[in-house]
This record gives sequence, C-alpha cells and structure tokens, in this order.
Amino acid sequence: MKTIDVCLSPDLMHLYKVHDRTVVVVDIFRATSCMTTALAHGIESITPFASLDDCRAMKAKGYFTAGERDGKKVDGFDLGNSPFEYMAGSLKGAKIAFTTTNGTQAIAKSAGAKEIIIGSFLNLSAVAKYLRHGDNNVLVVCAGWKGKVNLEDTLFAGALVELLKDHIEPDCDAPIAAQHLYNQAKNDLEGFLKNASHVKRLARLNVFKDITFCLTPDQFNVIPVLKENVLVPHVVS
Amino acid sequence: MKTIDVCLSPDLMHLYKVHDRTVVVVDIFRATSCMTTALAHGIESITPFASLDDCRAMKAKGYFTAGERDGKKVDGFDLGNSPFEYMAGSLKGAKIAFTTTNGTQAIAKSAGAKEIIIGSFLNLSAVAKYLRHGDNNVLVVCAGWKGKVNLEDTLFAGALVELLKDHIEPDCDAPIAAQHLYNQAKNDLEGFLKNASHVKRLARLNVFKDITFCLTPDQFNVIPVLKENVLVPHVVS
Repeated sequence: MKTIDVCLSPDLMHLYKVHDRTVVVVDIFRATSCMTTALAHGIESITPFASLDDCRAMKAKGYFTAGERDGKKVDGFDLGNSPFEYMAGSLKGAKIAFTTTNGTQAIAKSAGAKEIIIGSFLNLSAVAKYLRHGDNNVLVVCAGWKGKVNLEDTLFAGALVELLKDHIEPDCDAPIAAQHLYNQAKNDLEGFLKNASHVKRLARLNVFKDITFCLTPDQFNVIPVLKENVLVPHVVS
Repeated sequence: MKTIDVCLSPDLMHLYKVHDRTVVVVDIFRATSCMTTALAHGIESITPFASLDDCRAMKAKGYFTAGERDGKKVDGFDLGNSPFEYMAGSLKGAKIAFTTTNGTQAIAKSAGAKEIIIGSFLNLSAVAKYLRHGDNNVLVVCAGWKGKVNLEDTLFAGALVELLKDHIEPDCDAPIAAQHLYNQAKNDLEGFLKNASHVKRLARLNVFKDITFCLTPDQFNVIPVLKENVLVPHVVS
C-alpha cells in the first residue's frame, strides 16, 4: 500500500526524502486557497517566488504581482491574499507572480520532489482522488506560520489522511495526530479553529469572509500542479 | 496570565526563546520516565549526555552508565532504558551517566533555558503543580523520534496544557492541538497509542510492561530538575 506522511512545518523538511513522492503543499490561510481559486477562475498560471524582490521584478515582464507579508498585501502589488480577488473576470488568461509569508516558502523547500501539487479545502476531494490514483507515496507539507505548526494546515493534512485511509496508510505519527484532530473538528472546522493563532491574526484584519470561504470543502475540481516552476491547472474529472 | 507553548520536535527549537522560560523536557518512551523513576527511588543524581562516548567515559569516574540507542541498551552499559531497572535497592545513592536516542538530545537543545525540568506521566500532577506555582512562562519540549513528531510526547504536552488551563494560557497552535489530542485520548492512552510508531517499535522489543507503566499517571511526586548540568530530585509536597 502507498504511504502518506505529514511534515507539520517547513523547518522539518530536512527529515523527509521527497525525490520519489508527490508533495502536497498547503497554506489554508490563504496562499494555497488563493492559488486554487485563481486557477479555477481561468488565470493561466501562477509563478511562486520565495523572495519579495524576485516577485516584484516580474511586473516588468507583464505579470500581475500578488501576495502578502504578515497577512497584509504588499505595497505596490496588484493583488493581495484574499481568494475573492482572484475571481475577477479581468484576470482571465493572466500570468501571476506570487509570494507569501509561508506558502511560497513551503513550495521552495519542497524542491526536488517527484511532483508538487497545491491543496486546500476548496479542492480537497479533487486532491484526494488525484493522490489515490497516483503512483507515488505522499508527503503533505504544512506551511505553518514562520516555522511554527498551525492548526488549519494540520487539519487539512488530517482530512487527506482520513479520506485516503482505505487506500494509503500513514507511515508515522504526524499523519495519525492530524487525522485525529480532523475527525474531532470536521463537523465545525470554523468553530474548532476559533482559538487558532492565525484565525485571531486574520480576525484583526477583518477578513472573516475569507476564513469561512477557505474552510469550505470542494468548491473546485482544479489542482494547481507545478511544472517547470510554474503552477498550472490540472482538472480532475 | 503566564503562557505555555509546546515545541513538538527538538528540530524546531530554533523558533523558541527559552532564556526566560521553564522548559519541561519529555520523552515518554522511555528516557524521562526512567529519570523520574530513578530519582523517586533514591538514586542521587543523573547526568545527561548527548554523546555516547562522553557518557561511557563516566564509568571510570564511578558512575553507573545507562541508556539506549534505537530503543536497545548500549553494549557494555550498566543499565538500559526500562524504568523497572531503576527501582533496584542496590542503586540507592548512585550517580548515573545517561544517554538516549532522543531524550538527552532534547535536554542538550534546551540549553540556555531559565530552568529545565523533566516531565513524564509518572509525575504529571507534580509537574503541573510546580509550573502553576512557578514564576515563569513554560515551554514543553517533546523529544520526538530523531526529529520527527511523536504522539506520546505530544499527549503529555497536551495533558499539561489541560491541567493548567485555568492558570496558564496556550500562546500558539501547538499547545491547542496537543490539548485536543490529549482530551480525545485521556480515557485510554494505551488504546489511543496502539498505532503510534514508537509503540510498534517497542512492541517488537517486547516491552509491553514498560509501555503500560510509562502511561500511568502520578506514580511519583518527584521532579528531576537540572542544576549545573546534573538532574537532582525536587519533591513536590
């Protein structure tokens, strides 16, 4: 049986071999929720950058610049980190250069993986189906918050472990812990997360609508897949 | 209100400031359970060593050498990593030099903390009482398994968060996650852990009696406290 493991923080990536795995990068609030929403709304591609300056430089090449630092839109960038911004019809066919505090760093640290895809509650079932039919063992990489473990990314990892339990087995304790937490939380994700540190941080920024949306499963059947360092849409039918 | 945080792996210690905190090091299977048992049975002191060779060298200075690598007793050492070995009357007043795969490494990585104490289920309530009456914020450092997060140490961290919830507040997501897991597991810790990776590893070594004992709360009111790099007993009354 294939296996699934969970890396609860990008700062633990040195413990995992990724060359033969499909890595699922998750940053629920809000990078990977934005990426999923964008590619589901006709945006052509998203190029992730760990560095702010590298991202900014893409403006001159005709890209829309997008992203945040510490939860806030970057000065001078075209787009921030709310999924609703990525639904605009005017962005159809656009190329986006994207950088965030945690999400794009987690993608950078997953370099060398056999395959890198993007997960969020918005495309949860599509990701589960893709992994079930794939050939590779799986590693879910939680973006966390500046290296620290967070609840919302852990819950998403647990949701994948739970959905795949008849097909892919946990190969360590982190996936088991994440699965237990998800099963405790699944009937009211938002209620379960009300004391989570990032939810409090976002509440201060008044983005309650984003929180609710990012926790809504199965809005899209699109998975952002990294091909030559660019995220492009893969539709799961 | 004081705060409590949980470092789920020694490989995340760079994220935490410890100079003003009481650090509780935990390695349930079995280093910190052994240390607690030993000091509760009249052993005078335990000197932890991260390095096997440094530990071995203490034999010439009249110390008993103790510890394991990969769960197994080290060749030529006097004692292994089963708490029952530390109950022998012949060890009363002895000094022990101790090294383990994960536990003593976690102590080494906690260097610089305002105070370092040792926790296990065996002295759970004593540790909780000590922290409640102490002046410092708290960091629980889970020894894990070679850098990876494990369930049993996370459950102990969660037990402390739960017992202290009216007095010390969680200051990030890891303590909240650990508390949720503990509350799910507390009525049957051993059953909850049956799929945990280290329990499977120990089951292969046939140490079922150790597993049961290490998960039994409140056997002792002694806390090993690090003073000048040596663990000595502190009795909580």
